[in-house]
Amino acid sequence: MRDNDISRRRLLGTAGAAGATGLVFGAAGGAAAHAASSDSPTPLTAIGTTGVAFHGTHQAGITDPQQAHGHLVAFDLAPGAGRKEAATLMRRWSALAADLMAGRPAGDGDTGVALDAGPSSLTVTFGFGRTFFDRTSLVAERPVQLDPLPDFSSDRLDRKRSDGDLWVQIGADDALVAFHALRAIQKSAGDAARVRWQMNGFNRSRGATATPMTARNLMGQVDGTGNPKPSEPDFRRRVFVPDETEHAWMAGGSYAVVRRIRMLLDDWEKLPLRKQEQVIGRRKADGAPLTGGSETTELALDETGRDGKPVIPANAHARISAPEQNGGAAMLRRPFSFHDGIDADGTPDAGLLFICWQADPLRGFVPVQRKLDRGDALSPFIRHEASGLFAVPGGPAKGEYVGQRLLEG
Amino acid sequence: MRDNDISRRRLLGTAGAAGATGLVFGAAGGAAAHAASSDSPTPLTAIGTTGVAFHGTHQAGITDPQQAHGHLVAFDLAPGAGRKEAATLMRRWSALAADLMAGRPAGDGDTGVALDAGPSSLTVTFGFGRTFFDRTSLVAERPVQLDPLPDFSSDRLDRKRSDGDLWVQIGADDALVAFHALRAIQKSAGDAARVRWQMNGFNRSRGATATPMTARNLMGQVDGTGNPKPSEPDFRRRVFVPDETEHAWMAGGSYAVVRRIRMLLDDWEKLPLRKQEQVIGRRKADGAPLTGGSETTELALDETGRDGKPVIPANAHARISAPEQNGGAAMLRRPFSFHDGIDADGTPDAGLLFICWQADPLRGFVPVQRKLDRGDALSPFIRHEASGLFAVPGGPAKGEYVGQRLLEG
Repeated sequence: MRDNDISRRRLLGTAGAAGATGLVFGAAGGAAAHAASSDSPTPLTAIGTTGVAFHGTHQAGITDPQQAHGHLVAFDLAPGAGRKEAATLMRRWSALAADLMAGRPAGDGDTGVALDAGPSSLTVTFGFGRTFFDRTSLVAERPVQLDPLPDFSSDRLDRKRSDGDLWVQIGADDALVAFHALRAIQKSAGDAARVRWQMNGFNRSRGATATPMTARNLMGQVDGTGNPKPSEPDFRRRVFVPDETEHAWMAGGSYAVVRRIRMLLDDWEKLPLRKQEQVIGRRKADGAPLTGGSETTELALDETGRDGKPVIPANAHARISAPEQNGGAAMLRRPFSFHDGIDADGTPDAGLLFICWQADPLRGFVPVQRKLDRGDALSPFIRHEASGLFAVPGGPAKGEYVGQRLLEG
Repeated sequence: MRDNDISRRRLLGTAGAAGATGLVFGAAGGAAAHAASSDSPTPLTAIGTTGVAFHGTHQAGITDPQQAHGHLVAFDLAPGAGRKEAATLMRRWSALAADLMAGRPAGDGDTGVALDAGPSSLTVTFGFGRTFFDRTSLVAERPVQLDPLPDFSSDRLDRKRSDGDLWVQIGADDALVAFHALRAIQKSAGDAARVRWQMNGFNRSRGATATPMTARNLMGQVDGTGNPKPSEPDFRRRVFVPDETEHAWMAGGSYAVVRRIRMLLDDWEKLPLRKQEQVIGRRKADGAPLTGGSETTELALDETGRDGKPVIPANAHARISAPEQNGGAAMLRRPFSFHDGIDADGTPDAGLLFICWQADPLRGFVPVQRKLDRGDALSPFIRHEASGLFAVPGGPAKGEYVGQRLLEG
């Protein structure tokens, strides 16, 4: 790694020493003026230059804006590897993630795939699965929140693509930056851990829409409308584990539920628009409730039509999953779409890599999914094919690695 | 489809009537100022608003800048379908592509997946495979350029993922716009054609790098340096079929060679940087020849080192594929990278969806690949897994559909 690495380091300046998320390093700007011309190079913009800090109260990749590209990868510790090896691995991975997120190369053996690019909002997030605590003889430190999720009647789970000792979520606004990080994480695992499963996802490109915060999924539906907002007073309590908690190593952490949800698009798209909107309880065009208003308007769940029936049907997805219908249960949904090609029968292998974040899955995902499992009008059009639940520790302080308070506690 | 479609139409203005490629519709600009903030929405920028014209001398997607997302899909005509059904299909597909590329919905049954987004530089490109002419009883109109590619000794081709009666290349700078188009094209095939194979690819995001024209591949190598440039006097002659040609329906057309080239990244990344650079004949950091200069400097093929050996080794990929070593054979390479996850043994299923464009494969891809097949130092690190060769007719005039001059000639 030669000249270009040096210039990347220079471009990024003191990225590694930055303390807050969402820093912009020397944005060149002016993309609008150039992107349409095929010969003039597009300048490096905030899409490339934005960096996210690795160190902090919480890990990155939870409240940061959804990136255009995502990789999920689960590892199992290698036979014979235990707490010591896990600690060494987490130390190595943390140093690597800090370098990559600051736009620095992955050590001497860097593949060069991310050369020329800025950090592109790269985030690398680490979690521990239930089995991790058996493997590391840390069962006494395993939170009850990692108890296996209940079986849902509509689950069609492939166990080979579910669970795992360790989970890594990678997101970036550039595909090669994301791939580069995935590859570096995998190689850095060395002999300590082996890939169990890996999935790729995507979201809208920054700049392709005027409102990227209301992401659409591959059913064409606005997604994430009901998410708790960082500005709400109970946001932190809902998403993050409080400081005074039974297992201190999880302070500032969060629990991630990961589901590969296949969308049965051939069936879905046969429904007329009006029927689709009845299934969801919201308008497709703008995500507003069927009872009117805009995307952010509250659902008027009691409103009935002239036929005396509720305007938002009893089994509408938005009604069943509404926090007010679930004792206030709320989770921060931060998914990626996936599309792994077209099956032999012509059906797309596509859907949602559903990822939700909460302080406690028993007050987030589980009660909502229980209700959806019983009577969601959307159920016939989706299939949960894989599942994972991971404890994601708080963010590391400077000089610390992710999970250090667990592994050296 | 309601309010949002109308506003999309308004945003796009007279997109459908625009005559040149690379138009920018009402760019909002200012992305750099906003992208780093997680709460303020990113405005729609040229990334979203850029539209490419469907009608013209050549089809779109050949000389247009590489997009961030690509789908390749091959279809076979359904049993019983012939020339008449193919003509109806191409007429339908052409109207659809013109709508989508202008940012308009795909008719009444639009899935809504591209709502909110601009056309995002969407291109849809259509080609005919060798078997298309048998199926449509148009063998007399089949150009000799569609003769099967020779077998190369290093080929490991999966026939199920190769060839096809019809080929569609979709590219866009937003993943959902690209997926939306793929899905619309597939559904619009109706009973006339069935998907034979489908592949997904990607390139850098616009704005992630300062120099997107020098794309890097997943080996970390700068790719496409030797491409003919539109500014060169023989560019058109090399890439496009001339007006005076045996089969008049191919005037302004081009031939696409498509190869799924798996990269054996575990092996490649074990090579030290210096060895990798010897294999390629160029520096990894900036793509400059080992004989010095910058990316665009000519290879000094005769230069020898102090050991008397050529500085650019005899079997270096850049030497063997250099036009001056192949009687001037040149092709316009416009690839996408692919990454379809990690195999059970931990190796990545990743590489290059190689797509090259030329007026005649026998003066482009074939002689170069013949030479590479015999002695390319890169061969041990790649594997050609699928192959296709397609005749891509010239662009349609207004009111015309792609292939009309063949199917109604």
